[in-house]
Amino acid sequence: MITKINHIAIVIPELEEGMGFWVNALGLNVKKTESVPEQQVDIAFLPVGESNIELLAPTDTESGVAKYLDKRGPGLHHICLEVEDIDTVLDRLKTASVPLIDEEPRDGGHGKKLAFIHPKGTGGVLVELYQLP
Amino acid sequence: MITKINHIAIVIPELEEGMGFWVNALGLNVKKTESVPEQQVDIAFLPVGESNIELLAPTDTESGVAKYLDKRGPGLHHICLEVEDIDTVLDRLKTASVPLIDEEPRDGGHGKKLAFIHPKGTGGVLVELYQLP
Repeated sequence: MITKINHIAIVIPELEEGMGFWVNALGLNVKKTESVPEQQVDIAFLPVGESNIELLAPTDTESGVAKYLDKRGPGLHHICLEVEDIDTVLDRLKTASVPLIDEEPRDGGHGKKLAFIHPKGTGGVLVELYQLP
Repeated sequence: MITKINHIAIVIPELEEGMGFWVNALGLNVKKTESVPEQQVDIAFLPVGESNIELLAPTDTESGVAKYLDKRGPGLHHICLEVEDIDTVLDRLKTASVPLIDEEPRDGGHGKKLAFIHPKGTGGVLVELYQLP
């Protein structure tokens, strides 16, 4: 049902400076960076094996990521698991009464479907699910 | 230099109950569970692709993991990256003035070498390095 870890997301205050450790000190490569204005974040993707480190930096002070950074400080934010069939997984989670942020999959663009599981249901971890095309 | 994510460690109050979401709701398998008395934790390993979810539950109230749980609540604790040559990586980190918890690799048993990088040096993330035999 779950095939791999797609990414581990880490919140940092600013993308260029925050990439320093991962790229310059640790030697990871940056696959791409992008701005996501609708979520008020800049993102960098750094492949590690079959997974990615995803660095998230808020571009305003009001977004969810900005508030998380303000409250918790920089650090691990969420993990994303790839699934074969996101509808089946969400049905299974609903049957188990796991609280979901997204009851139905969201369109992630380019054929990707995604949904977030509420940390209340996982033991404190924000978990994202991806079904890739 | 970095080959893959070995595991993502998640702190939970109690192992059996905390495994419920990951095993019963999400359908992951438990590869093994073990008690590590010298660190006062119980651990469960749940494979996901080439990586693992590692669930950590403190067995006392004074260990590092217990204090983390008390201060931050349950959730993501650290990530562990596999490296080919841990001495080379640590030398590179020292050259970059990254603060380390372990200046030299620790013996992890069965030929494994490990070291922790201080969150101050990574932008808030506790990072473990593994060199496997």
